[in-house]
Amino acid sequence: MAELTITLLAGGVGGAKAAEGLANSPFASATKIIGNIADDDEFHGLWVSPDIDTLIYSLGDQIDRQQGWGRKNETHQVLNELTVLGQDTWMTLGDLDLATHIYRTHLKHQGVSASEITQRLAARHGVTLPILLPTDDVVQTQVKTPKGWLSFQEFFVREHCQLDVIDIEYQGIESAKPTREALEQIANSDVIVIAPSNPIVSIGAILAVPDIQQAVEQSGAYVIAVSPLIGGKTVKGPADKMLESAGKSIDSKGIYDCYHTFLNALVIDEIDQTDTAWLTEQGLDVLVTPTLMKTPEEKADLMSRVVEFALSHKKQRAA
Amino acid sequence: MAELTITLLAGGVGGAKAAEGLANSPFASATKIIGNIADDDEFHGLWVSPDIDTLIYSLGDQIDRQQGWGRKNETHQVLNELTVLGQDTWMTLGDLDLATHIYRTHLKHQGVSASEITQRLAARHGVTLPILLPTDDVVQTQVKTPKGWLSFQEFFVREHCQLDVIDIEYQGIESAKPTREALEQIANSDVIVIAPSNPIVSIGAILAVPDIQQAVEQSGAYVIAVSPLIGGKTVKGPADKMLESAGKSIDSKGIYDCYHTFLNALVIDEIDQTDTAWLTEQGLDVLVTPTLMKTPEEKADLMSRVVEFALSHKKQRAA
Repeated sequence: MAELTITLLAGGVGGAKAAEGLANSPFASATKIIGNIADDDEFHGLWVSPDIDTLIYSLGDQIDRQQGWGRKNETHQVLNELTVLGQDTWMTLGDLDLATHIYRTHLKHQGVSASEITQRLAARHGVTLPILLPTDDVVQTQVKTPKGWLSFQEFFVREHCQLDVIDIEYQGIESAKPTREALEQIANSDVIVIAPSNPIVSIGAILAVPDIQQAVEQSGAYVIAVSPLIGGKTVKGPADKMLESAGKSIDSKGIYDCYHTFLNALVIDEIDQTDTAWLTEQGLDVLVTPTLMKTPEEKADLMSRVVEFALSHKKQRAA
Repeated sequence: MAELTITLLAGGVGGAKAAEGLANSPFASATKIIGNIADDDEFHGLWVSPDIDTLIYSLGDQIDRQQGWGRKNETHQVLNELTVLGQDTWMTLGDLDLATHIYRTHLKHQGVSASEITQRLAARHGVTLPILLPTDDVVQTQVKTPKGWLSFQEFFVREHCQLDVIDIEYQGIESAKPTREALEQIANSDVIVIAPSNPIVSIGAILAVPDIQQAVEQSGAYVIAVSPLIGGKTVKGPADKMLESAGKSIDSKGIYDCYHTFLNALVIDEIDQTDTAWLTEQGLDVLVTPTLMKTPEEKADLMSRVVEFALSHKKQRAA
């Protein structure tokens, strides 16, 4: 057997959980992650890359497990002082976390690519699963609300996802160049796993980088997505709101809609098992299983079974 | 009597002590400070202005009184994490202090002048004594040592002033433009007080900004300097080493040499009272008094007496 190649498309907390699951599965050495950079934003002149940091902190076991983002044993001296200095500090950035942003911004100003910075940060945190970026250019999700266009963090953190979503745009996407590493990784994949992330602003923003979705469609890989919905609700984040604004239904069909041009299988929670028949009719393989991942064991177990399912069904299709 | 105008030229810890003394003297409302920016340097991509921050933190009662610089109740989470990330962290920057540098750097990148940033920071810290800058351009003291040219902070902090000083340069000085505020302040002054700061890298760097020394020389002000030397030693910092490298003696004569083109009076410590005769021969008025300032009372008392001495001798000279 040729060497196995697995790609995880990952964004947000769901993406980090899936990454941890794969890191602790028998498939760890075969796996690379493509992360989302469209949630990036600048605060106090510092470049913050929340989804990438959540991946690194999770895989490096530095994450605050309670909240699913940020650092454990975190303090907030700098942010408190920036508040004293009259700055807008609705974006919670802890001291340990700020060191990351200072480091990243410093290297960025020196002309080091976002991919290279990610590699260095990951190495410093002892992360062995490679994290690739879809692009080294700046792409930023913008959310149109009744209050006007907001950056993703303004919508997500400042407004607590409370506003209606009218439209979504990926600013800078037209001129963004995909990284060679991401395109090659996708092309060489046996299995592409789509994490239970927001299909619009996490996975959608990765796929929207020119040539990325086409690469997935043209890859010989078996593509399997873990639905981020359980009983029509998201575990975390505004995926439901965003699916609705995109005119999709907030269920397995909506997820299928987002990925239908390349999807081979969907993993849905037991609570949604009645969706199986419809999905099968669309030609999908369906894995019904508990999809909530809380413990390290649950993460590793689910992701192992997802890859095993993909490999066995890929074989069946080839036969 | 027309409104009294007093200017303090101040650098380093000695400058901050003198500023505090004036702030707590009857002359507070008449006083403006011109601070030194030639110790400025960039760390981790953040712009640090040590002398100006020491002034602001001291006058705002936020200074660490033990060390004379940095913030009281300081923590070092960010710096520890930058060390983990493999960064050179010999420059001690606490978390509260880093908020200042993040704030300053952010405004600087937005095109806000160093003077304006200083004003905003001072206001946030409740500092009422105005702090002017000699220039809004970047001037950086470079120290030539047997190890080569070092930035001032490399020499001062990283090398603990242990290296011989061969030469000193103010990088960027030729093209630096003096601020209108500093020139006007000097021109309108009745008394110019030179703090017990390093005459080469603190006061010298202020005077070296084009037109500043000339403005002091042409001002009608009575110029009085407090010697930073007590018994041939500096209270803090490398003034002795730097005087020596500049070919000056490490005593009252050396200080006189630095300021002789404009100096009217020198304040020396009781331990140095034998210098009085020689200084008087040079045409200087001499105030002999304890010059070590430790308590708030000692600072206010010394600086009050310095200004009173200047005002009475200025009157005598005019008579």
